[in-house]
Amino acid sequence: MSHTYHYPRPGLTVDVVVFGLDEDDLKLLLVRGGETPQRRWSLPGGFVRIDESLEAAARRELVDETGVSDIFIEQLYTFGRVDRDSRERVVTVSYYGLVNLSEHTVTAAESKDAAWFAIDDMPTLAFDHNEIVEVATARLRGKVRYQPIGFELLPQKFTLTQLQRMYEKILERSLDKRNFRKKALATGLLIELDEVEQDVAHRAARLYRFDERTYRQLAAEGTYFEV
Amino acid sequence: MSHTYHYPRPGLTVDVVVFGLDEDDLKLLLVRGGETPQRRWSLPGGFVRIDESLEAAARRELVDETGVSDIFIEQLYTFGRVDRDSRERVVTVSYYGLVNLSEHTVTAAESKDAAWFAIDDMPTLAFDHNEIVEVATARLRGKVRYQPIGFELLPQKFTLTQLQRMYEKILERSLDKRNFRKKALATGLLIELDEVEQDVAHRAARLYRFDERTYRQLAAEGTYFEV
Repeated sequence: MSHTYHYPRPGLTVDVVVFGLDEDDLKLLLVRGGETPQRRWSLPGGFVRIDESLEAAARRELVDETGVSDIFIEQLYTFGRVDRDSRERVVTVSYYGLVNLSEHTVTAAESKDAAWFAIDDMPTLAFDHNEIVEVATARLRGKVRYQPIGFELLPQKFTLTQLQRMYEKILERSLDKRNFRKKALATGLLIELDEVEQDVAHRAARLYRFDERTYRQLAAEGTYFEV
Repeated sequence: MSHTYHYPRPGLTVDVVVFGLDEDDLKLLLVRGGETPQRRWSLPGGFVRIDESLEAAARRELVDETGVSDIFIEQLYTFGRVDRDSRERVVTVSYYGLVNLSEHTVTAAESKDAAWFAIDDMPTLAFDHNEIVEVATARLRGKVRYQPIGFELLPQKFTLTQLQRMYEKILERSLDKRNFRKKALATGLLIELDEVEQDVAHRAARLYRFDERTYRQLAAEGTYFEV
């Protein structure tokens, strides 16, 4: 690798796929405005500054464009197709993040709109951002099989129905209730609380929380949860 | 993202971690020379050209610096710590590759040395390349648990002992022979051939090959092989 490299350099950006879960849907955080071609919706993101790490750039752009901060993010994949931006050569390092929607409000900034879209009702995005979302969704689905999931997506206290709905939304298929509960409880990840849901019309269900220590351990080691 | 971005841009490189397997060891392909600081060994790699994709750049650098071509490679992770190269800001997209050593010869080029090193007897590498190798090794270990592995690392026809040795080298622990064979055969991945090893001093062992269709299918779906 040459010390002084004077040839033209690709632009380097970061883009962030943020998944959010609410009572109804698995959602995705999108922005619109600025100089994005055809005023299409796109992932929050922007150029990496010369003096900041990739993850710092991803977090900075996310806060600047959407107001969302302090969430779990992880690097996903780097997209570098030569023609992915028609204006000039740009390589983007993508990240994906997970949030519980009840705990994060979105504020548009930098003269952009910011909004949540249900994952199964998304517009056509700018650049190759639809492809980035597909890769992120596949990663999330892979994670479900081999790692505990939900710590970031669910509220601190949740019902088994909420847990099952999360799996169903990610896997895009319905699961057998009895079988799911049996397997979920057998993981040793769930702590049954001495509390039930508040303010619900139906019969209040038991609340659970994750055993954080077991969760982190299984996340590091990997586990197999065949749902 | 702004159309014309006139601020300083990080340099963008690719680096390739190539694992090779021979009868004795899991090995790693390294190069030395050029302008690498302190004449340290490093991963094959270099700057991404403005008109080539990331994977094309990785393959080009690999051939130029080592003569190794047409191998399986996959993107690993992008490393962008601000101080990872003391000379200037450089972000690198890393790839990892797998080869069977008997089928690839290495030829140094571009006034660099190129050589294979046993993974458990590696020198201190330039930049953050030791960290990149660690991430690649962890990825390889993760793959062993959830995906079939060996198609690229083993010769076309192999013995169960060779297969077991590959797992042992990757996992860095010895496995029970009887148990391993039972599990390996139960995967449905192995086709027993009507041939035995040639030119060996010990009793010639049965040869196997992978069922490529089952292999590709399990690679796509994921499987759980607890060894």
